[in-house]
Amino acid sequence: MEQVKAAVVKFTKDRDWDQFHSPANLAKSIAIESGELLECFQWNDGNYDKEQVCKELADVVNYAILLADKLNVNLEDIIMEKLEENSKKYPVNKSKGNSKKYTEL
Amino acid sequence: MEQVKAAVVKFTKDRDWDQFHSPANLAKSIAIESGELLECFQWNDGNYDKEQVCKELADVVNYAILLADKLNVNLEDIIMEKLEENSKKYPVNKSKGNSKKYTEL
Amino acid sequence: MEQVKAAVVKFTKDRDWDQFHSPANLAKSIAIESGELLECFQWNDGNYDKEQVCKELADVVNYAILLADKLNVNLEDIIMEKLEENSKKYPVNKSKGNSKKYTEL
Amino acid sequence: MEQVKAAVVKFTKDRDWDQFHSPANLAKSIAIESGELLECFQWNDGNYDKEQVCKELADVVNYAILLADKLNVNLEDIIMEKLEENSKKYPVNKSKGNSKKYTEL
Repeated sequence: MEQVKAAVVKFTKDRDWDQFHSPANLAKSIAIESGELLECFQWNDGNYDKEQVCKELADVVNYAILLADKLNVNLEDIIMEKLEENSKKYPVNKSKGNSKKYTEL
Repeated sequence: MEQVKAAVVKFTKDRDWDQFHSPANLAKSIAIESGELLECFQWNDGNYDKEQVCKELADVVNYAILLADKLNVNLEDIIMEKLEENSKKYPVNKSKGNSKKYTEL
Repeated sequence: MEQVKAAVVKFTKDRDWDQFHSPANLAKSIAIESGELLECFQWNDGNYDKEQVCKELADVVNYAILLADKLNVNLEDIIMEKLEENSKKYPVNKSKGNSKKYTEL
Repeated sequence: MEQVKAAVVKFTKDRDWDQFHSPANLAKSIAIESGELLECFQWNDGNYDKEQVCKELADVVNYAILLADKLNVNLEDIIMEKLEENSKKYPVNKSKGNSKKYTEL
């Protein structure tokens, strides 16, 4: 992942795009790309173009890497911290086999 | 990243949530979480709650990891492939310092 | 608006697209189109293509009209009801000149 | 619809919120609310809370009305113009009973 992160950051640096990458613009970009990802499933949930899904998913995570970099946080760390928080919101005994939101558990 | 991925997948498995995680539902979840991330910047681009941004960003990437796992693809690989593709769409000499979309370059 | 609604519904009926328009698929479509609308502001908040913004905005509301129709609700009615609810969440004396969410007022 | 539009605009004016409602911020708000609408269908396409769907849909269109107002365009007009454009992209004989995007017709 370190190599991927370095490649993503270098891609941006080579093009002098850092000037456009405010946290707000990166958040917008993640939302835009997640809309394109969703478009792969717009009219049919089960019959999708896997290659296209992978490209759009890559775009989402590409911007996520840039946002973490911009905020000077480690993506792995914040995911592990959120999992810890979620494990309290969703204790196994209450949430097993259950898709309800924690506010309704 | 392998450790993080294992933790994310285990979290889901412990709760028997795999049954809800169709690719389409995961794509919806990524879009939903990216909306929550965007909410951190709704009325103000520059003045954001960094801790909240990190939590929402973690949620986005958490679902991205699950979607890659569900599709049996390696997240790092698809990002590197997309970077390769993007480097053709956005050659340095044309796109340097320029935020135009490749269709307008 | 009644005329517009009739035109939107007729467009769909002429193409026999009602079969694709489950409430869930229409909700996805609204999210997808709102991502395209957001793209008009991706790298620059103030310098946008007004014509393009109008097209994407029209797409969002087009699907909103179809979703209201599918749910057999009147779009005007549900907006007025939500305004009523919001006026309790955001009383003028507390929210005037203030962009805080009601949970923080 | 004119009455609804007047009520939506008055709600904002009463709270002096116009200062927050740049076109970019309204586009973000539409994307955020469309994520909340999508959340009604996150894990289950067919079993949704209709009342909640209506509230989130109202929020989406509420911001759409504000954006049209901010841009000084008539929402009905831009929808009719977009339908006209779409009818060329999707001629009945090619698109009937078919959910393909116009680029693939």
